[in-house]
Amino acid sequence: MKYYNSKIIAGTTLAAIRPKVVTELKKEGFGVLTEIDLQATMKSKLNKDYLPHVILGACNPVYADKVLSIEPTVSTLLPCNVTIRELANGDVEVAMIAPLVAMSGIGNNELAQAATKIEEKLRTALNNI
Amino acid sequence: MKYYNSKIIAGTTLAAIRPKVVTELKKEGFGVLTEIDLQATMKSKLNKDYLPHVILGACNPVYADKVLSIEPTVSTLLPCNVTIRELANGDVEVAMIAPLVAMSGIGNNELAQAATKIEEKLRTALNNI
Repeated sequence: MKYYNSKIIAGTTLAAIRPKVVTELKKEGFGVLTEIDLQATMKSKLNKDYLPHVILGACNPVYADKVLSIEPTVSTLLPCNVTIRELANGDVEVAMIAPLVAMSGIGNNELAQAATKIEEKLRTALNNI
Repeated sequence: MKYYNSKIIAGTTLAAIRPKVVTELKKEGFGVLTEIDLQATMKSKLNKDYLPHVILGACNPVYADKVLSIEPTVSTLLPCNVTIRELANGDVEVAMIAPLVAMSGIGNNELAQAATKIEEKLRTALNNI
């Protein structure tokens, strides 16, 4: 199984699509709690030139609370990463982690059921971008 | 395979152990790029009382660059999560994601080799805490 779901959007930039990504995540109950600017980080740490590429840490508190109540150390798999990156051809890729792949490996049915719901919500957000 | 490695430390608090966790990560080349205070987030979003529990997003830029050059969308699995949480009995658990479990599923040998190195470094940090 693929560990992420993604879509390619032509004729945009990371900066232009970012608000739409955040809005669609919010509609599904996810707030963006963290952000890593990989382009800036790689320039500053390694003096390497990356195309624009960010990692947003998206969290749906209701579902986070549900999975944490089942298995507290599942926090090592939180939040749900949503990445946006510009490709060399000018398109932009939006990718969202597939929680079911990560969480189904834990072997807890209740956790897998919650992960299925979370993944559905992320897929809905992705489809609406 | 377990998706994280962890250790229990008695007679401390999250606040007291956090600097040691950051220091040992730094010795292995990991900077902490993000931090989520789950206790504060759950209180603010759901009015639920959690024990102290944080998710640190740790990144080793050299290895991040290596895995991103192999597969750019592996950013959906970055950074490496390191969690610290207080337990009901007064002990503290420190847990670190096991990147090999997440990345070995991708079916790319070069990526799995890099993940093995990253996991070794995280295990060293964990052992030294």
